[in-house]
Amino acid sequence: MDTPWLDRRQLRAWIRLVGVLELLPGVLDAQLRRDAGVTEFEYYVLAMLSEAPDRTLRMTELARQTNATLPRLSHVVSRLEARGLVERFPCPEDRRATNARLTEAGWATVQRAAPGHVATVRHHVIDALSDEQVDQLAEIGDAILTRLDPTGSIAATYTRYDEPPGPLASEQVGEG
Amino acid sequence: MDTPWLDRRQLRAWIRLVGVLELLPGVLDAQLRRDAGVTEFEYYVLAMLSEAPDRTLRMTELARQTNATLPRLSHVVSRLEARGLVERFPCPEDRRATNARLTEAGWATVQRAAPGHVATVRHHVIDALSDEQVDQLAEIGDAILTRLDPTGSIAATYTRYDEPPGPLASEQVGEG
Repeated sequence: MDTPWLDRRQLRAWIRLVGVLELLPGVLDAQLRRDAGVTEFEYYVLAMLSEAPDRTLRMTELARQTNATLPRLSHVVSRLEARGLVERFPCPEDRRATNARLTEAGWATVQRAAPGHVATVRHHVIDALSDEQVDQLAEIGDAILTRLDPTGSIAATYTRYDEPPGPLASEQVGEG
Repeated sequence: MDTPWLDRRQLRAWIRLVGVLELLPGVLDAQLRRDAGVTEFEYYVLAMLSEAPDRTLRMTELARQTNATLPRLSHVVSRLEARGLVERFPCPEDRRATNARLTEAGWATVQRAAPGHVATVRHHVIDALSDEQVDQLAEIGDAILTRLDPTGSIAATYTRYDEPPGPLASEQVGEG
């Protein structure tokens, strides 16, 4: 083959990343299902809405922020709507566009899920690392995301927390 | 809440890890489906068998090596068996146990998938990082996996490549 296989050192790093990719989503998902009855992706959708002005986003923008295709997002939002956590309505500025808004019940769900989610993220990732490793992980993540998202189309999603906190910062509940 | 939310620096690292968790599996999966008609998990199962002596493993061992539950693995192996890529038979040493063996067609599938898989792993991860970052990623991965796998039950899977290469090392095709 033209591309050489990984050397031992590269393989060591790759295998560990594969292990994290395999195991971490299940751990996050289990906590969210247990505490709030939502999947990790559903929580991500609710959390993005919870941080938006008026807890409302256009569906196209919500799809971008959650790295989802519009059909996949529509499917999930339909399910969340049936459970009373989200509502959809035509965008007042552009009647052809659709907005999604977090309901009070949806907000309560995010609030219920958030403490356990933070604890899970801390226990399994952040608290396992030194401050130096936290910074290294951010740099490594940036480098990989530049390859995964070469046009930078979703870069705004993962750089949004790099800005100084706005007036609503204390309400932020994260987006894992 | 008792657990403080992440500070800006921690959030920066976490959001990037979430981005990688969201995007990388789809990229790996797309290549494997395109080149060999298998999902990432199916490839992982075939690759583990391809590296085993006689390309054969007990189902319980294969489950451990692929971080899968036995029911999930059985389901996937049934599908691979129907496509002629794997065959199951009673373990000669313990008739109550079942072995899975890679067929010639399964071996050919691994061989067909591997070059593109390696190229994908290199392009999206390894080549994006400096040698120093590769080592940092391995250390960070180790630290996170110690939390995700506190009893070390799957540690053998991700430390196996740390050993000096055996006589079959040149045949290894990876396990991503």
